[in-house]
Amino acid sequence: MKIYPVACLLVALCIASAWAQPPAAGKAGRGATAPRIISPEVGADFRVTFRLLAPKASDVVLTGEFLKADQHLTKNEAGLWSITVGPVEPETYHYNFVVDGVKVLDPGNASLKMGSTAQTLANSLEVRGTQPFFYDAQPVPHGEMRTNWYESKSLGFVRRATVYVPAEYDQNPQKRYPVLYLLHGANNDETTWTRQGRANLILDNLIAAGKSRPFIVVMPFGYGVKDPMNPGGANNNELFSQDLRGDLIPMIEAKYRTLADRDHRGLIGLSMGGGQALTIGLNHLELFSYVGGFSAAIRQPETFPATFASLVKDAGASNQKLHLLWFGCGTDDSLFEPAKEFSKFLTAQKIKHTFRESSGAHTYMVWRRYLNEVAPQLFRE
Amino acid sequence: MKIYPVACLLVALCIASAWAQPPAAGKAGRGATAPRIISPEVGADFRVTFRLLAPKASDVVLTGEFLKADQHLTKNEAGLWSITVGPVEPETYHYNFVVDGVKVLDPGNASLKMGSTAQTLANSLEVRGTQPFFYDAQPVPHGEMRTNWYESKSLGFVRRATVYVPAEYDQNPQKRYPVLYLLHGANNDETTWTRQGRANLILDNLIAAGKSRPFIVVMPFGYGVKDPMNPGGANNNELFSQDLRGDLIPMIEAKYRTLADRDHRGLIGLSMGGGQALTIGLNHLELFSYVGGFSAAIRQPETFPATFASLVKDAGASNQKLHLLWFGCGTDDSLFEPAKEFSKFLTAQKIKHTFRESSGAHTYMVWRRYLNEVAPQLFRE
Repeated sequence: MKIYPVACLLVALCIASAWAQPPAAGKAGRGATAPRIISPEVGADFRVTFRLLAPKASDVVLTGEFLKADQHLTKNEAGLWSITVGPVEPETYHYNFVVDGVKVLDPGNASLKMGSTAQTLANSLEVRGTQPFFYDAQPVPHGEMRTNWYESKSLGFVRRATVYVPAEYDQNPQKRYPVLYLLHGANNDETTWTRQGRANLILDNLIAAGKSRPFIVVMPFGYGVKDPMNPGGANNNELFSQDLRGDLIPMIEAKYRTLADRDHRGLIGLSMGGGQALTIGLNHLELFSYVGGFSAAIRQPETFPATFASLVKDAGASNQKLHLLWFGCGTDDSLFEPAKEFSKFLTAQKIKHTFRESSGAHTYMVWRRYLNEVAPQLFRE
Repeated sequence: MKIYPVACLLVALCIASAWAQPPAAGKAGRGATAPRIISPEVGADFRVTFRLLAPKASDVVLTGEFLKADQHLTKNEAGLWSITVGPVEPETYHYNFVVDGVKVLDPGNASLKMGSTAQTLANSLEVRGTQPFFYDAQPVPHGEMRTNWYESKSLGFVRRATVYVPAEYDQNPQKRYPVLYLLHGANNDETTWTRQGRANLILDNLIAAGKSRPFIVVMPFGYGVKDPMNPGGANNNELFSQDLRGDLIPMIEAKYRTLADRDHRGLIGLSMGGGQALTIGLNHLELFSYVGGFSAAIRQPETFPATFASLVKDAGASNQKLHLLWFGCGTDDSLFEPAKEFSKFLTAQKIKHTFRESSGAHTYMVWRRYLNEVAPQLFRE
């Protein structure tokens, strides 16, 4: 990885021009009076420069989804660390710095990857190409994301769920809609599928293009406990399942205009939520007819026969109930081999399914593409 | 500030027990395999212990709203830094670490203060007393927060606004509601009034107790530009005002069941948004009859006569139009003196108003209390 002299010059200029000028907008808490450092900066050549002012630090590392390996930044005499990498292919990536062994967010970058825990916080890097992304906000009608607080009787406390209603929802006060329950991964929360996954914008764009039927998407909080730092261990999926079936689905069907039957109810998740979706969904075909897993956390092939006993007992009957069973995984993902094993298991048991082998690793880049591919296949029967 | 030996012992125990055990829930990105460190830990005596594993760091500082001054942590032989402070009064505070001069979030704490920029990110510390907070989620009916994406013709791009609808909204399909436009501060965004301000929960609780009339709250994004890192300087408030009056209010009134007249429209903001609310609201009494500023960014008393010329031209007429003009500021806030000057100015000009002098600084602790105090006074006429 080369350091480009032009970047150093730019940095010097940035510091010179920015130093004297604090942020324009009012008193904003400690740290706001630091000079403005431009980071990241995407060049016309798709090379990206990162900068961090840290005169006292002895080592600054950049880690990001667009890098093959972590990169060490270099420091100038003003204590500004910088590096230029790339060219980077147009996409939306996550990255962060590591300063003397401790994770640090890029203070120059307002765009963040959120999560339920501080560990998974990162910055977003958007490298734009000549075309809009399929997950960009376009001038089309936009659905709403509705944050619901609800009492979970199963779990004994107040929980949250994000609900996407399509743009037309309020214009059709008599119309009822299918519902997709869409589950997040470990250390994510009920906002991650929209914040990082852009689920709302992907659906806005698909619906506007006539590629997807309008439907409601419910994005619950995937932990069955109050504190995601204590995720409940092996019991978590069971707790989550109780809330989903006993509280969340009844609340949604009481509150929203849903088509409240199995033919119009789907369950899809990613990573941890993929494991939940496959396990809960395929064991509850009386509730769900569309089931999917994106890079699903199903790790132990030896447990498949017991875990999915109710599914495979009568393959013909299960196939009739399942309008779609879809799961995908990137070949660079450590969960790829288990996914392949799951496909083999289902094939041996004569369960119809689609196993999508794609490129990519364990990231929202892959999951956004999967949602864009699967949504048009939902609720077609 | 003392370091308590018991904390060191606890830390040693935590490390010993946690080291061998990675987080339970799946592959979660880089950093997830680090040992679990308990931080913050609130003791029964309301003392709070903070811990950060950073063997390579040479200095770790704790900065927080519950401290009179920043505190240096001490390191043990395993590289774990820690400190115990307090007792701390029950409240919800913000804090972060500073490692070798660089801001670092507490990786042990899932609870975060969000913002539109990475600079204002911090962790939350909740110290609970014997009673629930007025901003806690209680077993009462909960309103929804609805995230709207809308095209701003004034500004030429897609913007977001969070809309709170009271719990009863969907049960009364013919009923129309007053609307409060509630503006955030610098480096906040359209989610901050609910995430940090708990505006939805404060209103849920007030409405359930019969203390407040049910109304809609619209929380826009307070910058008139796409990139909050480039907040548009002196022009920002004018850009924001154009969007508010030209796009946001018409969108809300087309989409929601509002009482769409000045008697049922309020404008309140905090800090930067307080400046916007007072400036825009008091210059547009044809639109707003309830106007308020919480720790408002109105810094230059010499500009008051020009800025508020239309308000003071005919005090009698203005007083008749204003159902409420309320502003407050904490005595530890640097904006306290300008607020006092503003009150003097209004008194001299015979404009009716309430100036609330309270304790506290420039924090959401103060603004939550102000909202709880003001909401019951809204839309009573």
